[in-house]
Amino acid sequence: MIDSLPSLSRLIAEMAKLPGIGRKSAARLAFHVLRQSEAEATALAQAIIELKDRVRFCTCCFSVTEEDPCTICQDVGRDSSKVCVVEQPQDLIAIERSRSFTGRYHVLHGALSPLERVGPEDLKIAPLLSRLEQGGVDEVLLATNFSVEGEATALYLAGVIRPLGIEVTRLAYGIPLGSDLEYVDEATVNRAVEGRRTL
Amino acid sequence: MIDSLPSLSRLIAEMAKLPGIGRKSAARLAFHVLRQSEAEATALAQAIIELKDRVRFCTCCFSVTEEDPCTICQDVGRDSSKVCVVEQPQDLIAIERSRSFTGRYHVLHGALSPLERVGPEDLKIAPLLSRLEQGGVDEVLLATNFSVEGEATALYLAGVIRPLGIEVTRLAYGIPLGSDLEYVDEATVNRAVEGRRTL
Repeated sequence: MIDSLPSLSRLIAEMAKLPGIGRKSAARLAFHVLRQSEAEATALAQAIIELKDRVRFCTCCFSVTEEDPCTICQDVGRDSSKVCVVEQPQDLIAIERSRSFTGRYHVLHGALSPLERVGPEDLKIAPLLSRLEQGGVDEVLLATNFSVEGEATALYLAGVIRPLGIEVTRLAYGIPLGSDLEYVDEATVNRAVEGRRTL
Repeated sequence: MIDSLPSLSRLIAEMAKLPGIGRKSAARLAFHVLRQSEAEATALAQAIIELKDRVRFCTCCFSVTEEDPCTICQDVGRDSSKVCVVEQPQDLIAIERSRSFTGRYHVLHGALSPLERVGPEDLKIAPLLSRLEQGGVDEVLLATNFSVEGEATALYLAGVIRPLGIEVTRLAYGIPLGSDLEYVDEATVNRAVEGRRTL
């Protein structure tokens, strides 16, 4: 029956390509679109097209932006001597939300992963190094994820940045706020003990 | 930071309107679209627009279709003396998938719900009755959901269809295939005992 509706099967197939959306959810979404008004459905389609149309990568930090360079790279009020390196634009947004960093950013667009054949040349590492070589930066904060790939990337970057005479820092490991110590995994407790601070 | 990207916030807002998609999932989907190629994103947007453009409701059974009347209403090989009444087009697809019914359908587009102020006039009940009054139908199979609203709708329809001299049937209640009797809820077991059949 669904075969006699090629436009419905097409939307289900397209929706199912999105992350975390299986065929059943895709069908539910497609039927929802079908019940929506013309205007609502067009707004969704339009938003997708406009996003691709307007958003580009900042030529300086490679974050997503509608104007190039991005608002953060343009902002003279930010401390350009500190650069925070993240894997994805989403990570940058998470740090901005914490209001704890007032420097600039650099987005790698991934992490090193020999298994998935992602090497240094597949990430925005060369542009980062040429940015740093221009001088004016005295600290690079590595904020890659705390996964195997993120840690490997941080180690690699520390190795290539330290020779430039720039201080390389890493986000602190430790117990997340609001945690019950009893339920925190032992590797995290281990790192929190190692990284203990004098009060 | 996300505020400086109106097109990104717009897509997140539109995605978050979809059922089962919260703000976090919507952001994940929007960032996925951002990483997709131009062609992939356009395919998704195009599929949404085409669906709204091509799919309409069959003027006979109110199911979704690209040609009117729909392929089922047009199919002379189907038994037009039997009409199966369902709440939504998805339900029709579920019954078609079971290959157990060879008659025609009628889609109500909802179920009676006094709490949500859905009355008989909000459903496709009047067109169903005028279809039945044209004659030629000797059985109406009520396949509304087994929820309070679906049951109420089935009861209501039985009340208005029986006076037309048409047999009204309902999908069987019982134990779902592959169930462990131990874990089936007691109301279902109750209905299965009541509806027991001679082998």
